Amino acid sequence: MELPTFYSYYRSSCSWRVRTTLNWKGIDYETIPISLIKDEQKTPEYKSLNPFQVVPTLEIDGTVLTQSIAILEYLEETRPEKPLLPKDPTKKALVRSLVQAIASDTQPITNLRVIKYAGKEEWPKYWVTNNFQFIEVQLASTAKEYCVGDEVTLADVCLVPQVYNALRWEVDMTKFPIIHRIYIKCLELDAFKAAHPHRQIDCPSELKEI
Amino acid sequence: MELPTFYSYYRSSCSWRVRTTLNWKGIDYETIPISLIKDEQKTPEYKSLNPFQVVPTLEIDGTVLTQSIAILEYLEETRPEKPLLPKDPTKKALVRSLVQAIASDTQPITNLRVIKYAGKEEWPKYWVTNNFQFIEVQLASTAKEYCVGDEVTLADVCLVPQVYNALRWEVDMTKFPIIHRIYIKCLELDAFKAAHPHRQIDCPSELKEI
Repeated sequence: MELPTFYSYYRSSCSWRVRTTLNWKGIDYETIPISLIKDEQKTPEYKSLNPFQVVPTLEIDGTVLTQSIAILEYLEETRPEKPLLPKDPTKKALVRSLVQAIASDTQPITNLRVIKYAGKEEWPKYWVTNNFQFIEVQLASTAKEYCVGDEVTLADVCLVPQVYNALRWEVDMTKFPIIHRIYIKCLELDAFKAAHPHRQIDCPSELKEI
Repeated sequence: MELPTFYSYYRSSCSWRVRTTLNWKGIDYETIPISLIKDEQKTPEYKSLNPFQVVPTLEIDGTVLTQSIAILEYLEETRPEKPLLPKDPTKKALVRSLVQAIASDTQPITNLRVIKYAGKEEWPKYWVTNNFQFIEVQLASTAKEYCVGDEVTLADVCLVPQVYNALRWEVDMTKFPIIHRIYIKCLELDAFKAAHPHRQIDCPSELKEI
């Protein structure tokens, strides 16, 4: 059987979510880098795979999947071993709520194309700081070792890349001790570590940590 | 058993998604309006229910659910009659991908708080026009009567409120004939019609259509 093909950009937080999940579930895959700074997501070849002109895209099981959250749900459903969603519907809704607080409320506003168009230097720092306040409050009642209880879930998978970006934008993480603790804790795990932007084949050599 | 309580704002597209789904599945509920223009989402009482300080929030089955997409998934899982997701994982991923193209890529950037902070008059029109281009291309290969094939799915549930907003912002919908056709078609269905902002108890009288 052919290896899944993963179209990814090393620093894209949405790509990182999927890399972590593939690693977590032990799914081997091949990476094809799509450089967002070179606008490679707009080539006719890539657009025919991903009409939304964003990364990531995953070719797996003879099909093409787009949008990271849809991909995570697909992998969870078709590879239920090493689950990243709790079985209980209420707890599952709690995980998915945190996923959306990151993947809908936070990441899209601080997406490269939105930052460029906004034309305000403080834009990404402002929004991440604003939304991390809310997420920190929520985690105060749901987190133990990880975002929801003691098991790694899709909430952690989405949180880690968002914190990496927050640090790039010099967000003061001392204001968000729970978020920061979970970030550090997750990066001790192989699945997260191997998915780190600095370990990807398209990472510029000055940042590379392989 | 107590009726579910739904905290909602008439013009919030995320609230509309949940209203449509509750109606579609025949779940009776009570509405408590939260006025976003009066900042009622920031009161201590509401924040204790919804730490993200956004609408909607749904109290159901003895629990409190936040984030519209997490709520839709919960309702789909716990009330599988009149499904809004296909059974096949690949088709399901296609629906969820369209859901995220709206709920992550489009709606959050055109959220009231983001529009205010951006301070550019053309902001919401620009982003909706930009993203509808991509969604129109995707629908050209997935849509029949509705977004994915001939059945109503969560993709339609999310699309309709986004088009209503697009029309408010004077987006030229003649550029997006598939999106517009599906919008019109969905609004012929009772579940969508009854969920329309102009039929909500907190809709100002000059817009009201009850």
